[in-house]
Amino acid sequence: MAARLIDSLATTEELAELFSDESALQAMLDFEAALARAEAGLGIVPQAAAEKIALAAKAELFDSAALSRDTLRAGTPGIPLVKALTERVRATDPTAAGFVHWAATSQDVADTALVLLLKRAQSIFEVDLARLEKALRSLAEKHADTAMLGRTLMQAAPPITFGLKAAGWLGSIRRAHKRLNASFADALVVQFGGASGTLASLGDQGIAVGQALGDELGLAYPDAPWHTHRDRLAALLCDCGVLIGCLGKMARDISLLMQVEVAEAAEPGGAGRGGSSTMPHKRNPTGCSLALAAAYRVPGLVATFLSGMTQEHERGVGGWQAEWPTVAGLIQASGLAIASMVEVAEGLSVNSEKMRANVDATRGTIFAEKAMIMLGKELGRDAAHKLLEETTRKSVAESRHLSEVLRDTPEIAVRLDADALRDLENPEKYLGVADEFRKRLLSPKSKNPESERE
Amino acid sequence: MAARLIDSLATTEELAELFSDESALQAMLDFEAALARAEAGLGIVPQAAAEKIALAAKAELFDSAALSRDTLRAGTPGIPLVKALTERVRATDPTAAGFVHWAATSQDVADTALVLLLKRAQSIFEVDLARLEKALRSLAEKHADTAMLGRTLMQAAPPITFGLKAAGWLGSIRRAHKRLNASFADALVVQFGGASGTLASLGDQGIAVGQALGDELGLAYPDAPWHTHRDRLAALLCDCGVLIGCLGKMARDISLLMQVEVAEAAEPGGAGRGGSSTMPHKRNPTGCSLALAAAYRVPGLVATFLSGMTQEHERGVGGWQAEWPTVAGLIQASGLAIASMVEVAEGLSVNSEKMRANVDATRGTIFAEKAMIMLGKELGRDAAHKLLEETTRKSVAESRHLSEVLRDTPEIAVRLDADALRDLENPEKYLGVADEFRKRLLSPKSKNPESERE
Amino acid sequence: MAARLIDSLATTEELAELFSDESALQAMLDFEAALARAEAGLGIVPQAAAEKIALAAKAELFDSAALSRDTLRAGTPGIPLVKALTERVRATDPTAAGFVHWAATSQDVADTALVLLLKRAQSIFEVDLARLEKALRSLAEKHADTAMLGRTLMQAAPPITFGLKAAGWLGSIRRAHKRLNASFADALVVQFGGASGTLASLGDQGIAVGQALGDELGLAYPDAPWHTHRDRLAALLCDCGVLIGCLGKMARDISLLMQVEVAEAAEPGGAGRGGSSTMPHKRNPTGCSLALAAAYRVPGLVATFLSGMTQEHERGVGGWQAEWPTVAGLIQASGLAIASMVEVAEGLSVNSEKMRANVDATRGTIFAEKAMIMLGKELGRDAAHKLLEETTRKSVAESRHLSEVLRDTPEIAVRLDADALRDLENPEKYLGVADEFRKRLLSPKSKNPESERE
Amino acid sequence: MAARLIDSLATTEELAELFSDESALQAMLDFEAALARAEAGLGIVPQAAAEKIALAAKAELFDSAALSRDTLRAGTPGIPLVKALTERVRATDPTAAGFVHWAATSQDVADTALVLLLKRAQSIFEVDLARLEKALRSLAEKHADTAMLGRTLMQAAPPITFGLKAAGWLGSIRRAHKRLNASFADALVVQFGGASGTLASLGDQGIAVGQALGDELGLAYPDAPWHTHRDRLAALLCDCGVLIGCLGKMARDISLLMQVEVAEAAEPGGAGRGGSSTMPHKRNPTGCSLALAAAYRVPGLVATFLSGMTQEHERGVGGWQAEWPTVAGLIQASGLAIASMVEVAEGLSVNSEKMRANVDATRGTIFAEKAMIMLGKELGRDAAHKLLEETTRKSVAESRHLSEVLRDTPEIAVRLDADALRDLENPEKYLGVADEFRKRLLSPKSKNPESERE
Repeated sequence: MAARLIDSLATTEELAELFSDESALQAMLDFEAALARAEAGLGIVPQAAAEKIALAAKAELFDSAALSRDTLRAGTPGIPLVKALTERVRATDPTAAGFVHWAATSQDVADTALVLLLKRAQSIFEVDLARLEKALRSLAEKHADTAMLGRTLMQAAPPITFGLKAAGWLGSIRRAHKRLNASFADALVVQFGGASGTLASLGDQGIAVGQALGDELGLAYPDAPWHTHRDRLAALLCDCGVLIGCLGKMARDISLLMQVEVAEAAEPGGAGRGGSSTMPHKRNPTGCSLALAAAYRVPGLVATFLSGMTQEHERGVGGWQAEWPTVAGLIQASGLAIASMVEVAEGLSVNSEKMRANVDATRGTIFAEKAMIMLGKELGRDAAHKLLEETTRKSVAESRHLSEVLRDTPEIAVRLDADALRDLENPEKYLGVADEFRKRLLSPKSKNPESERE
Repeated sequence: MAARLIDSLATTEELAELFSDESALQAMLDFEAALARAEAGLGIVPQAAAEKIALAAKAELFDSAALSRDTLRAGTPGIPLVKALTERVRATDPTAAGFVHWAATSQDVADTALVLLLKRAQSIFEVDLARLEKALRSLAEKHADTAMLGRTLMQAAPPITFGLKAAGWLGSIRRAHKRLNASFADALVVQFGGASGTLASLGDQGIAVGQALGDELGLAYPDAPWHTHRDRLAALLCDCGVLIGCLGKMARDISLLMQVEVAEAAEPGGAGRGGSSTMPHKRNPTGCSLALAAAYRVPGLVATFLSGMTQEHERGVGGWQAEWPTVAGLIQASGLAIASMVEVAEGLSVNSEKMRANVDATRGTIFAEKAMIMLGKELGRDAAHKLLEETTRKSVAESRHLSEVLRDTPEIAVRLDADALRDLENPEKYLGVADEFRKRLLSPKSKNPESERE
Repeated sequence: MAARLIDSLATTEELAELFSDESALQAMLDFEAALARAEAGLGIVPQAAAEKIALAAKAELFDSAALSRDTLRAGTPGIPLVKALTERVRATDPTAAGFVHWAATSQDVADTALVLLLKRAQSIFEVDLARLEKALRSLAEKHADTAMLGRTLMQAAPPITFGLKAAGWLGSIRRAHKRLNASFADALVVQFGGASGTLASLGDQGIAVGQALGDELGLAYPDAPWHTHRDRLAALLCDCGVLIGCLGKMARDISLLMQVEVAEAAEPGGAGRGGSSTMPHKRNPTGCSLALAAAYRVPGLVATFLSGMTQEHERGVGGWQAEWPTVAGLIQASGLAIASMVEVAEGLSVNSEKMRANVDATRGTIFAEKAMIMLGKELGRDAAHKLLEETTRKSVAESRHLSEVLRDTPEIAVRLDADALRDLENPEKYLGVADEFRKRLLSPKSKNPESERE
Repeated sequence: MAARLIDSLATTEELAELFSDESALQAMLDFEAALARAEAGLGIVPQAAAEKIALAAKAELFDSAALSRDTLRAGTPGIPLVKALTERVRATDPTAAGFVHWAATSQDVADTALVLLLKRAQSIFEVDLARLEKALRSLAEKHADTAMLGRTLMQAAPPITFGLKAAGWLGSIRRAHKRLNASFADALVVQFGGASGTLASLGDQGIAVGQALGDELGLAYPDAPWHTHRDRLAALLCDCGVLIGCLGKMARDISLLMQVEVAEAAEPGGAGRGGSSTMPHKRNPTGCSLALAAAYRVPGLVATFLSGMTQEHERGVGGWQAEWPTVAGLIQASGLAIASMVEVAEGLSVNSEKMRANVDATRGTIFAEKAMIMLGKELGRDAAHKLLEETTRKSVAESRHLSEVLRDTPEIAVRLDADALRDLENPEKYLGVADEFRKRLLSPKSKNPESERE
């Protein structure tokens, strides 16, 4: 009853594996083993019991399908997991069985297991984001001087460089990445509160056990249990959402550049990627489409998590139960978007000649602003604006280059010499501080704006 | 790498099965077999080829894990599926292999397969909704006269009956169900358009093939291919969303009634359901929590689908690729919500004594409105309102019944005789047309309001 | 403290007016006047009181800013409105003041007022949708034979006609329109339930009053009050969401066609529309951007309404209070999207020459499928596929027309004569049943698919 | 045509004012004045022109209704604003008119104006959040020892303290507040890029102008223009979303505590707040309902912003145009939620006697876990568990206190002496480390968990 195919465009294999039954089950068992060890270390449960529990806490010893069914009945994965683990321990050591899950509640195991999975997700993201940022940096450096059309509202505008475009993508992704890592650091904390969040059954040892548990699992220990305070997870998922928005913007740009009529860039074909059975030459924006699919899906998942935050008292009714599929779906979508854009960025072919050709095809009309400024110094802005309106319309109507029309307009020709007219339509001569912006975006010291002010 | 556990509170087993690899794969293969048969029937492909294709179109012959991997590479499930099917047919009949997927495009197979799965989902929903509606009707009839507190803003208000409450749930669910079935009827249509939606490779036979394909699959044939017109699917998912909203409202109400301080109703315990390891007597609102979890998740999924509708030209970049997990997740959540509320409704225990006790515990203050009206006839509304404000405050402050306070207030006592005062706090005597509303909601002829006006 | 500017891209003026203070206030006052008349007609309140109430129920007599402030304090618009109306009636007739809002609760007035506003919204939508559908039909008819590129994943694909594209937009909009009107019919019902939804203070006259109230207001009378059953409103907003998705798809397509590199269509400039101060010739996709803005905003608003459906008992805590801005925002966004696309469709300029030029610019590679089929009859599909792969790659690599490459490939040239090669790249000769689909979509009898099957 | 009433439950007055026409218009004019001054300072425009522009840049001189209409036509507020300002400057100084908006594009003014409004929103939030945190701290300190029921899945669970509950709310709100302020710091940056984001018309002075502009406006200067990189705004809105989720959780808890059957807390009545016309004694959770309304609305608005991030190239088509109403609605909802919970927290009345009574009403069954542990030491956990299951069921069935049933069960009575049995049901004796958690949450040094580990 596996369901990979229906989600085949929703996750990478690695992240499918991360949220697989085996992996989720093992994360819950890791909590139980660590809890027993932590409690044994503090003399709360016998050392021998902790060892037996740890021995039994192996995912392969359990029937995950049965546990899934029982979870649906119980309304929480913790209860059937603890029951099954207890039975398995009891089979070898009835006394040890009495110490399984000592002082914990079912939400403790489910929440902490989720955090353990998220910790592994962070590592996966980290690798791919490093590759993506490297590839974008490389594009931004290689194409520092590659002029191309700016496009506002998908219409031609004065030129930019492809280096600046790539640096812009990189800048937003780096900022989102940084925020995301801060959120991971906040969210990777143990949940351990017992029945009501007071750890009452541990007397005054609750915090000591919790800290030891965190040490066992490599997770930080928070101020207090967070069973119905889901802000840390929410912030993490939001930051994924922001990152995916950045990736989606990059993917949309590239998919637009790949249009046959534009043809300025193309994502790599690669094995099995983006083919068409009837049009063998075709290169589809497959990687972009996967990142954009994530960008369509993730906002709704973020909203779901946020709306589920209003959890009742010490355990929510519905809000909590909605979390696992939401978090898993969102993390998987995010990972797929990142991985897809790694592939796109690393293999992107950039057609700088077509970029120049597309600039030229506008016949200089995108430089009307520039001409207006040059003329404005002498004629005044209003008069210059009026002249340029007329000449640009003429250029468009007659399909002639703007510089030619200007040359043939006496009151302009006397003011702009041949050199100026020749340069007018040269995109390299009208890039402003594009390259400074590009460098600032690439700067390793690029920092928060507030610090920059000082 | 199966992932049932992480989604264990997100689907029923039956719906997990519906969207399993085997099931999704078979739906795609069914499309290919039906297409070959339809084309053979019209003399477009050889009858023998159609037979060979149909023979090969068995899910168990394919490696779904490999297909999932290839789908992620291809960006669509259709391409690797067709390739694998072609290879399999080729192994027995190279000529027949040339007719696999004849004239179709990869989206045709994916979309029509999805529709086939939705058709089966409708049958599943239908069975459960019939049970749910029956159970609610039974509650609404049995408790026609069971008075209970009305509660506005979760505060005590004049009484209603539990029968009316149950009928209100039923009414909204029936309306949503009716809309949903209309949307299913609209959405269960073949997608068959070929490369660009013109079926150009079939010459003038495109529509004939499409109709025959629909007949083979038991699906209607639409006006035209709908590859980037997703309104029918969107409407279907929206109507699921409305239904889940209705179920969520019912679940919220019941979870509130189950609070230990209210204790007016309880969902059944059932095998493995809702227990607590440390508090064996506890009955948790497990079924309600699952329906509410769906009610938290579904709105975001609806939004995802709607925002993905803006699909580019003849095949979308991202919007389409986001659909499968969205649709599957939403249908599974909906089915689980329905099934959970079936169990809740069929096994609901209603404590009519506690309902009466909770009415009585308000010491008659919820009947202030009634007393005001009775007095208003003689005193005028303003004077009556003023008097009731004072007496109600006194009743609350002194923890005395309102009727007693009224009896001890001379200017009231002369106007309301002992009988009237005795009746004042009797909830059965202040139910207005609750029972008529209840009956109207249960009426088998309950119809659209616009027709009612005639 | 008016706030039009911040919402200036979020509503039409007409719909801003519809939800203005004056209009919303008058709708609430209309409820109160109609209620008094209905109750007077049934002898429940004095006829004279009803007349006084109706006289006072004029929006211009009230201070809407003060009412807004008081509404925020009260948490509902009904309470301050009733208080202010009562004071105003009392000023002329103290007795009549006692009959203001008789038997109603504050939610009754707010909900019914909303319904009255929605009824007017429907009329506004209706006018614009009729214009939009007429304009699209006209485009679809005029361009029945205008061939253009099909585009899948924004890459060139076999040709379609612009007539079919316009008919596809029309088909989806007509279907969504039809659904929306059915939802309006369901939703335009009175809400009248009194304190708890039983109309207890009216004894057995509740339904008679409700029906008379509906008649006064021109609204249907439902089975029962729907104070916490919001499915009818939810369905209405969902159907707006589906319609906006259809409009967004059309807007996205047109904005893509308007790209300077594509240049196949342009929305009209119109007064003040879409200009650029520095590039006077530029035609921006302004109308499309407004429809797309709505398509970005509406899904979240739909999700908000759906998630707010889980309203507690007989009056919700939060879910209900979230509705007014959500409904108003969504209806306004929808109306603006419709109006924007009316302007786009009515003034759309279509450049059929550029469409043909863009087909030609693919140098016939989009007809590889066609050539493969022609050759496949003789060579077998596999061999043909292989040949076409090679020749298409050659065509792309050498920037030569596919037909030329085929002509120069001996094993093909012997099988495809000069006529066939000449026709190969003619888009009109490879349109399949595009025109039949177009006609079916335009058919006035276009009906639900299920009926079509019979 | 003002529309305050329809949004009366969607914003505070202060935030309605912040996004009013006057305020939004002035923010845009502030940009223009600051730009002229910055450019004059660098010798780019004449000082005199800058002065004339600044003099004209007063909101009260403009017709905001006309600007709103023109904005809808233009598809952006910048174009009509600049046109109107230019005309006004021209009236006094035609030369100065030529320097209005020098080198800027329409998006620069709209985006920077939005940032200026957000800066003021932060100040408003800051004041209210400080009050809220102070009030919660006070509650958490005052009720350090106030025992109350823990409630999981809205069922009775072992006791907590109200102090811990309040500290839990505070902890989540403080964390969200801290994140939000970091996001404000990131987002409060100038947008200034000119036509395509290169500031080409300023030659090499673009960055100098941008920095001077930031200084004029009190905004930081970013790495580069962010016209289509919306991550900073997105992160800010997400963090509002997380905060509102925290407030919604607090509001939901309090609204549950306010139920007449629970009656453990009540928000204050205050002027005009939460009354009921017919039940004068009633205290509705009005403030909570407003915060919860925000918690229903904000997730959809967050999703809208995230899904609009995929903005095309150098100016988006739809995604950008959707932002203003989304941001304004979200900020207003957030501010209202904060302000509402300030009022709730500052005036919250806590009924500690009812809290104790509700603990007692469970007749000790919530202490079954405690008894089990005490017995488990002697009997072993399994035997203890079995015994407690039986005795708890008996306690519930016979409506007797658990301690009595235990006393009457010989095998238990011999092991638990009278003192132990007397203490069993004392909530103060079973609070675990509730108070330590409370103190940690209140600690001024409460810091990020990762640093805590060191």
